[in-house]
Amino acid sequence: MTKSDKKIPPRVIPRLSRYYRVLREYDQKTWVSSRELSMDTGFTDAQIRRDLAYFGQFGQPGKGYTIEELKKSIKQILGLDRQWNVLLIGVGNLGTALLRYKGFREQGFEIVAAVDADASKAGKIVNGVKIYPVDEIQHIVREKHILMAILTVPEQVAQEAAEAAVASGIKSIFNFAPAHLRLPPEVQVRHIDMTIELERLSFLSSRE
Amino acid sequence: MTKSDKKIPPRVIPRLSRYYRVLREYDQKTWVSSRELSMDTGFTDAQIRRDLAYFGQFGQPGKGYTIEELKKSIKQILGLDRQWNVLLIGVGNLGTALLRYKGFREQGFEIVAAVDADASKAGKIVNGVKIYPVDEIQHIVREKHILMAILTVPEQVAQEAAEAAVASGIKSIFNFAPAHLRLPPEVQVRHIDMTIELERLSFLSSRE
Repeated sequence: MTKSDKKIPPRVIPRLSRYYRVLREYDQKTWVSSRELSMDTGFTDAQIRRDLAYFGQFGQPGKGYTIEELKKSIKQILGLDRQWNVLLIGVGNLGTALLRYKGFREQGFEIVAAVDADASKAGKIVNGVKIYPVDEIQHIVREKHILMAILTVPEQVAQEAAEAAVASGIKSIFNFAPAHLRLPPEVQVRHIDMTIELERLSFLSSRE
Repeated sequence: MTKSDKKIPPRVIPRLSRYYRVLREYDQKTWVSSRELSMDTGFTDAQIRRDLAYFGQFGQPGKGYTIEELKKSIKQILGLDRQWNVLLIGVGNLGTALLRYKGFREQGFEIVAAVDADASKAGKIVNGVKIYPVDEIQHIVREKHILMAILTVPEQVAQEAAEAAVASGIKSIFNFAPAHLRLPPEVQVRHIDMTIELERLSFLSSRE
């Protein structure tokens, strides 16, 4: 499909996500120019052309890009042409909110099970997703073909929970716990640390 | 306080947040070496020394850094030596979870009010925070001296809600809505786009 996957700089990926989202809103037309994409995404059209060039020649001079072809290619590049079964680890406030969040499912990330250390939560169903005791993690991950986990546990137990997930067969972790995880390099981790993000805002706002 | 604030690269800031968090856990000692900080944060000690050098000479050869002094300086640099009054815009599932999230308050980010477009929510109190009708935003922002907002509204109304916030006097926005905001350049925005983060994971995991 693409000639140089390995050379794609990681920073291109979130832009592809953005292009993809904008492209999905073009339901009335067939072609789009990098200039239009620029208007709708906020990136420069030079940037957009450079990003899309990583994946071969989609564009046609004067006409732009075929929307369908571009969507299909980005979907494939991002690994969105399949469904990801996701395990939620930790059904507290944030975990519950994520269970109810519609955005994941719409993009092919389906939370198919949840686990929690609090035994009293076991057996409950939130938004159609059953909560299991945490010691059943290995069984559930295998049975439900889960490769990805969302980690929403308290800081103190995050490392332990992540290790249990990896031992069960989880390959990627979306970490919302405010803890730096030490995991084998082959495990993909994305860390959303809300306090750090707020501190960035605070830093920037304090400069004024 | 510092000699070269303007030259601090933005990527240093989240590392300072991380150092700060680790430093707060050292309650038994006075000095810490960059090597210890490296062990506890996962960054190299060369990186740590380079980062801390932006803020002048904290370290002492052979002994390392005074923990108290370092904490105080980072706190000041990050703008954490004050309380930030925060407005939550949009009290849906994610907004409610954030209202209940303890991590913000602990770091000096206090959600002091919330607004929601759904009039039936007005007057309710969640975790001690009162929900107001959205048309009272200007009044509340002024009365409560709010400079920062957390935006947890649906994509379609995000731009409009952000503009209303800015018009009311909000200077920084923590945007959880999956929408690219177009705001005046002096408004600081941090965007947490969970779908984009999941797509990064999906991309990385698809490479294997």
